[in-house]
Order: sequence, then C-alpha cells, then structure tokens
Amino acid sequence: MSSDRLIYLPLGGAGEIGMNCYVYGYGPAGKERYILVDLGVTFPDMDTTPGVDLIFPDIAWIAERADRLEAIFITHAHEDHVGALAHLLPRLDAPVYARAFTAHIARLKLEEQGMDPALVKTVSPWPESVQAGPFTVGFVPISHSIPESSGLVIDSPAGRVVHTGDFKLDPNPVVGEAFDPELWDEVAKPGVRALVCDSTNVFSAHPGRSESSLGDSIETLIRDAEGMVVATTFASNVARLKTLASAGRRAGRSVVLLGRAMRRMVTAAVETGVLGDFPKVVSPEDAVSIPREHLMLLATGSQGERRAASAQLSRGKYLGLELKEGDLFLFSSKTIPGNEKSVIRIVNNFSEMGVDVVDDGSDLYHVSGHANRPDLQAMHQRMKPQMVIPMHGEHRHLREHVKLAEAGGIAGVIAPNGTMIDLSGNAPKAAEFVETGRLYLDGAVQVGALDGVVRDRIRMALNGHVLATVIIDEDGEMLGDPWCEIMGLPETGSSHAPLIDLLEADLGQVLGRADRKTLADDEKIEEAARRVLRKTTQDEIGKKPEVTLVVSRLT
Amino acid sequence: MSSDRLIYLPLGGAGEIGMNCYVYGYGPAGKERYILVDLGVTFPDMDTTPGVDLIFPDIAWIAERADRLEAIFITHAHEDHVGALAHLLPRLDAPVYARAFTAHIARLKLEEQGMDPALVKTVSPWPESVQAGPFTVGFVPISHSIPESSGLVIDSPAGRVVHTGDFKLDPNPVVGEAFDPELWDEVAKPGVRALVCDSTNVFSAHPGRSESSLGDSIETLIRDAEGMVVATTFASNVARLKTLASAGRRAGRSVVLLGRAMRRMVTAAVETGVLGDFPKVVSPEDAVSIPREHLMLLATGSQGERRAASAQLSRGKYLGLELKEGDLFLFSSKTIPGNEKSVIRIVNNFSEMGVDVVDDGSDLYHVSGHANRPDLQAMHQRMKPQMVIPMHGEHRHLREHVKLAEAGGIAGVIAPNGTMIDLSGNAPKAAEFVETGRLYLDGAVQVGALDGVVRDRIRMALNGHVLATVIIDEDGEMLGDPWCEIMGLPETGSSHAPLIDLLEADLGQVLGRADRKTLADDEKIEEAARRVLRKTTQDEIGKKPEVTLVVSRLT
Repeated sequence: MSSDRLIYLPLGGAGEIGMNCYVYGYGPAGKERYILVDLGVTFPDMDTTPGVDLIFPDIAWIAERADRLEAIFITHAHEDHVGALAHLLPRLDAPVYARAFTAHIARLKLEEQGMDPALVKTVSPWPESVQAGPFTVGFVPISHSIPESSGLVIDSPAGRVVHTGDFKLDPNPVVGEAFDPELWDEVAKPGVRALVCDSTNVFSAHPGRSESSLGDSIETLIRDAEGMVVATTFASNVARLKTLASAGRRAGRSVVLLGRAMRRMVTAAVETGVLGDFPKVVSPEDAVSIPREHLMLLATGSQGERRAASAQLSRGKYLGLELKEGDLFLFSSKTIPGNEKSVIRIVNNFSEMGVDVVDDGSDLYHVSGHANRPDLQAMHQRMKPQMVIPMHGEHRHLREHVKLAEAGGIAGVIAPNGTMIDLSGNAPKAAEFVETGRLYLDGAVQVGALDGVVRDRIRMALNGHVLATVIIDEDGEMLGDPWCEIMGLPETGSSHAPLIDLLEADLGQVLGRADRKTLADDEKIEEAARRVLRKTTQDEIGKKPEVTLVVSRLT
Repeated sequence: MSSDRLIYLPLGGAGEIGMNCYVYGYGPAGKERYILVDLGVTFPDMDTTPGVDLIFPDIAWIAERADRLEAIFITHAHEDHVGALAHLLPRLDAPVYARAFTAHIARLKLEEQGMDPALVKTVSPWPESVQAGPFTVGFVPISHSIPESSGLVIDSPAGRVVHTGDFKLDPNPVVGEAFDPELWDEVAKPGVRALVCDSTNVFSAHPGRSESSLGDSIETLIRDAEGMVVATTFASNVARLKTLASAGRRAGRSVVLLGRAMRRMVTAAVETGVLGDFPKVVSPEDAVSIPREHLMLLATGSQGERRAASAQLSRGKYLGLELKEGDLFLFSSKTIPGNEKSVIRIVNNFSEMGVDVVDDGSDLYHVSGHANRPDLQAMHQRMKPQMVIPMHGEHRHLREHVKLAEAGGIAGVIAPNGTMIDLSGNAPKAAEFVETGRLYLDGAVQVGALDGVVRDRIRMALNGHVLATVIIDEDGEMLGDPWCEIMGLPETGSSHAPLIDLLEADLGQVLGRADRKTLADDEKIEEAARRVLRKTTQDEIGKKPEVTLVVSRLT
C-alpha cells in the first residue's frame, strides 16, 4: 500500500475573502512535492491596518519548503489572486504558469518590481497541461468577470482535484469564455476526488444572472440621461467595462476612460487579444470639447477609494472634467463590506452637486462574478466529487457551503487557513494545523502582522502620544529639567493649564526625588516616567496615552 | 407690516444621520428669540475620529446667543437626540422640556455629569404646551421605537411648524403610543406653515411595517431552536426588547438581559410606567443553572461594538454564559453603514463555534423605526403644510425628500446644517449661512474637530512617529549625539541596519555641520532635523513619518 498522500492546505483565502493562496502536495507525509495556486493580496483598512499598503498571506510554511515547490499556478488576474506574486516570488523561486492574459498582467507586476518577466510561462487551455512533479495541471476556461479565468484540473496519482478558482455559470459573459457544460462534463468524467470550490455567494439564494443581461438596461439608462453619464466599476472587471462602454456607444456617446488602473487593464486586454471590439475611446483632453450629453465616462473607484477618479470627480474637477446638476453617476458595482462610508461620502458629494446617483439596488446594473447558491449546487452535481472543500470565503461562507454539499450527499469539510486536509481517503480528514498569518507591505518593507508596528500605530491613534526626554550627566545626576512634547492630545485639560507644563513639572518632581539606583537604570527611569506621565494625562484629559521616553546619558 | 421672521436653523442632523440639534427663532432679524430642539450625539469611527469618545454638534452659534434662548425641547430619548445634553447644557443655561420617560433618561445623564436633574421639566402631551418666548410648544405622541417619542407642534405668531422628530406610522408599536391619525388631523387643522420632517427612510419604497408584525415570526424561530437563543438589538429600542422578550416568554424561555445599557433602559422604562408587562427577567448568575434550551438572552452590541455583550459572547464566556454548537444568535437589527466589518467579525466568530446566525435579511425579524417613502408621502398629505423641510438625513436623503415633497405639490428646500431658512414667506428661503461643525469628547475634554488633535493621531497611525532629542549646551554647541526613538515604524528597512541607528547618525551629521545661527534657533534645528529624519525614513522604509523633536537647552 502506498504511504503517499494528497494534501490541500490554504495559506490564505479560506476564512476570509482575499489574499488567495493554496498549497497542494503529494508524496510521503512531510516529504510531499508541492504546487501553489494563486498569490493574492487583501486590502488594508484604518480600523485594523492603518498606514499599511497591501496585505499578503504569510507564506513562511511553503517558503521553508521551497526546495520541494514545483510550480506556481495563477487562476486569473484579479489582485486577490495575483497581487502578491511579485512581492513573494523571490522567496519561492519556482516557475509561474498562467494563461496569456493573466501571464501578461503578472509579467507587468514582476517588471514593476525589477524582476525578470520571463519567470512567468504562458499555458494554453486544458487539455494542454503542465507537469509539475507528481502533478499534472491544466487550465479549464470558466466564466468570471475577467478574461481567461480558469479552474484548474490537478491530477495526481491519488486522483483528480478540481480547483474552481473564482467562477460563475455564465453562458454569455460578454468577455472571456462562456461556461461550457460539455467541457466540464469532460473534466468530471474520469471521476473527481475533490472539488475545491469558490464560496463567495453561498448565501445568495437565486441563480446568478448573466453579464449579458445588463447591456440593455444600462443602454436605456444612458439614453434617458440628459447630461453627462459617469459609470464606475472595478477596473479589473473587464467584462463590465465592455458592457458599459458598448452600452454607451450604442446610446451614441463617446467613451472616456478615467483612472490609470482602468486604462492599463483595457490596454492589457486589447494587447492580448481578449478584448477585440472594445469601443474606441476618447482622451480626457479631447472629451472636454465634446458636448456633455454625448459623453460616457468610465471611472475607477467604485469602492470609494479617496484618490481614484470617482472620488476626485465627487470633489470637483478631474482632468478638466466636472460633473454638474443634471448629470448621472452609476455605480455598476456592489459595495464591499467596510467600504460603505466611503461610497456614501461620494454619493452625498454628488447629491450636493445635484448629480443623480444610481446604484445596484435595483439589480439592473450589476451582476456578481461569483456562483450563487443554486449554481454551486449545480456545480457539485455536475462534478460529482467524492468531497467538496469550500474556499474563497469567510468562515460563515465555508460553513454554509459544507452544509450545502452535505445536503446534496457529498462529504465536505470546513478548512480555514492553516488546516491541512488529507484528500487521500474516502472523506476529507484534517491532517495537521499549520501556523498561518499575514504580512504587511508597509511602504517598501514587509512586516509581520504580529510584529507590533501596526499595533503601536493604532495605540497612538486611540490614545495620543507623550514624549519626554531626560538628560543624565556624567555623575549620574539629572541635568536640568525633563522636556515633554505631546502629539494627538488636547493642549489643555481639566485644570486649564498647558498639559505639557504639567507633564514636565510632575516628571521633574518624580525624577528629582529618584535615588541614584533608579537614575542609573534606563528601564527604571522609563517605568517611573511612564507611570507619572500617564497618571497626569489621565487626571487632566481622561486618557492614558502612549509614552516614549528618551534618556540621554552624557558620557 | 411686521419685520419679524420665523427661522429654522439646523446645527446638527441635517446632512448626516446623527447629532440632531435644531434651532427655531422668531423676532426681528438678528434679534430673534430662540428655542432648541434636541441635543444629540453621533458616534466616532477609526477612519475619521480615532480615540474620540463622542461627537457633539458645535453649538457656538446658539451659545453666543444663549441670552435669547428660551428653552430646549427633547423629542425622545435616543442618544442622537439627547446624548449631548449633559455635556452642552452648561453653555446654554436654558430650561429643558421633555415627556416623562425622556425626562427620566435626561435626568440620569445630568446626574452622571454632576448636574442638577431638576433642570429637566416633565411635560404632558399636547394639547398641554410650554410657553417659550414667542413660541408655544406641545409634544404630540408619535410612534417610533422608544416610548413617548413625540413630534413637536411649534406655534408662533407666524404660524404653526410641525417638527416630526423620528417617527413611523405604526398602528401597533408594541411600546409607546400608536400613530393616531385623528390626533394628527387635529394638529393639521389650523393649517401648517412648515413640516420639518424625518428623512431617514426616504429611499425605502415599500410602506413601513408595524413592530407588532415581528412577534409571531420571532416566537416561531425561538420555538424551533434546540439550544440557547441570543438576540441583539439597540439597547434603546425598547419596543424591540419587549417584542423579543415576550416572544421568548411565549416560547417558554427565561429571559436574561445582558449589558448595562439594556438593563438600564428597561429599568427606566419600567420605573416610568411605560413598560408595564415586561416579562420577569433572570439574572445571568441564575441563568447558568437553567437548561440552555430554556434560555433566551437579550444582548447589547447589535452594531458589533467590541466591548458589548454580543461581541464578548462571540469571543467566549460572558458572565458565565457561553454559546456552543446548536445555539442560535439573532440580529434583530439593521447594520448601520460603517459597522459591517465589526458585525461580520461576530458572525464569523459564531460560525467557528457552530452557532447559527440569523439576521434581518429575510425581513422577518426586524422593522425600521422610521417612516418609509410612502409613509412620508402620507404624512405630507395629512399635514398639508405650505412647505416641507427635510431633516434627519444625509444630503442624499434631504435631496430625495425635497423631490418627493415637490412631486406632491409642496414646496421644499434642502437645508443642511448651517443653512438658516426663513419660513415666514410663501416658500422657504435661505436667509443666512452659519458656521457649524463638530465637537469631540476626547476622554474628559471637548476639542474642536479642526483643532488638529485628531488629525495628528490619524497621521501617526498612517505614517508612524519618529522622536528625536538634541541637547544644546550653555555655549550653544550640540552636546553629545542626538538620540532617536521610533513608534509605529519597522525596526529595519532596505539597508537592514537598525533604523534608529541610521536616524541618529544622519541627524548627528546634519546638526554637526550646522552653524551657530541654526543651533541658536529651535525652529531652524527642527526644520533641519525633520527634513533629514523624513528623508532617511523614506529611503529605508518608503514612508515619510511624523517627526517630533525635543531640543533641550542647558542654561
């Protein structure tokens, strides 16, 4: 009997929506050969990650085993699947495989970081495949909201795993390949050991709608508009850009692309031939001289991002273009939880200008790129796997998706990040729990989520910061009085005297009374200083601040 | 002809949902006598107001005219209407009027701040009224989600203004008075000059549903539950507490109140007689010995607040009570924009425990306390005012509400905070624009939103903080080397040397080369230091930090 096993281990993307990163391994326990699927990012927020630029999965586990990593496969070009590639690849040193459009985007990312774009290899769709150690991997076209999205067929001596990637069942996705039932039946035919499956929309009860269902209603909306029309969606939602631009063109309007990310994505899609008939676009400079009722702008920033084109338009002019009363702004998008306030801020800004805002409340102008609950059921039934492993979801999604699979008579298991599942048996089995986590890109530096850097920033933001400096002379005596500064604290409190004066006086008194032993020990000074500075601030302001003390010793 | 005018001026609550505060005035322009309606708070968030405890309207305008302020009226006891009273009343020095339950809550707030509760006078419902300078003001019962909510009938020589307060049209609101069409017809009869009207739900197309429609579905949900049931809603939603507790009781369960705010609110409602038949509750201590399938907990924290009972239960034990697989958690509430992530965090925590979570997605377990679009139309038609002034809404709500009024043939005007409207003419007319803003309660201190305190905190959170200290001796020379500390910044960057060492070396070099004139001038030293410290951090980390320099001069 073989002692080899087939394992699945999510390092990111399971227990959250974002930073997808999945390991598959085959071989003797602890000596498997590995492949990695996707290397995505997630986005920071002020609540938990202020000042952070991007968030990556902590890939320490696979990086420590990089000598046994055969290859990296990227399912599609969305940031939560490819965004971390250029930042983490140097630690992995494995070839990267993707289809043409995805590979094109991935290469641009490597170039930006000064890396060799040739590290990314282009693969044609299944049945073409890549041999990677014990694995044979093929890219099966599947419909989503970006060109050339693919599910992966991962064959190993222990059988076939189907990793869906992000998908929906769209017979006419406008851009990219339609969902092809016959092709997927073909994939299912030899038998599927495990279906590792997108869970994003498991709570959406109705069957998903096709991208192609939007064009007419959007065209009608534009035709009825009297002024300028601006629409926003994710820059990476190439299908929607096409839907919007084509509807605008049919309504007799010139199309303008606003925002670097959007121009870049459209250029990449045109260059790789996946977006052949995108309407000719007009530059913002030329648009200024076109009557506003003949203009249709596509703008970045559907999630309310402060620096994106939509937010800038909501605050005033952007590249010479400006909205005014009677214009129409369309959110052809869904607001991701956490972004509501930023989006609403834009809506209110437009309201102040007299611009009418239309959002997806009516379901006429947006469809999701992910499979809904009945679509997931259909996929389960089509693939008839021995087991379903839900991925791409928060814990609540994974849990619900397992229930759904089990209701259909298929074994399932909740496997959040770090749960290594042995797929070799008749049912999925947790084999090991692995430490996982997050890395923060902070400026140009990667820091661990638990390093305390961001925790300190949050504390300063909540509590303010008191700084004090004490000089100890050559004889071990305090030289002069201590000096204090504050940042992020009110200048005066309950006694109406300047807080800084009070802090300096109280600290001076405490240290003036301190014995030589205390003054000889930086830690003791710091402890005493911290205590009095926090107490004084608490008495005056009602807050306990962060304290940093600099002890300068003259020698 | 009279030169007197009747004015309306929102200082808070118009152009936002929260911190309601409305001025009415009557008299010669600039010499009006005033009344104030409501003094509410709004809640801080990490994005814009980290570390802030509460947000108040900036009442400078009316405080400067406090000698002409006749009275303050509180429509109901929700925090966004009464929460700032105790904090701002000392600057206004006017009598406060409210109905019994509201007055009770208001007095508790004054007592907490060490003020005289007798400043709050209890008023019976209209037709009883209060004479306040040129105004006669009556409290007309109206249905909402807290007992004794009232619209105000504000009579002046220029006619009648109806200020709805928060309201819905509920014939059976479970707690508090039903909406009484005949009573409101009575109010409308002499003619209404202006209807100042709640706008919260102007985008909700369907007629609002009655609180009483929830009891049966909640009872069924509880009956079907096998384990413990926990439900959360706003502590101040007394009607919902009643609905939930009664349903729990009918389903044969003992009811437990978890969270100080909830116990306090129920106690106040019982003490003032507005909540006579609330089921007997069991203490958490006693609950521990009751079988879990006989328990129904009501918990604070429907918005995901970290320290409230719901969040604590989602993290583990709370007062000896703990959820486990098979239990049910019900959000009988709507998530306020901005709180989604906190709420979802709780849902995922419960998912990890195997607890089933039910939310208002199905519309079976929550109804809004505010009038929907058709209800607003009905109110317009019932009151037949000369003009509608929308309040209690963001700009988008006010704008939509004006459109709605105008579609019904009634003049309307968008009047966000600071827009003084002259109501004396045939149509509303903007008379003046007044500076308004926000005050932050920070610990125990009130700071202006523009004072820079919170801005500095946000900057520290985004950029990190570098601290440096320089000692200048009696001769004007630098004594020793500068010392640096960092907070909220990575310890090492691109060169892999400790950032602090690099900062100290670079600063030492710059100041070592500085001439006596620079060293004699704190500002010049600071400028030079800031420049080099920011540059070094940018080179190493890729971020420009906040810098605080302490120059210690020995004398």
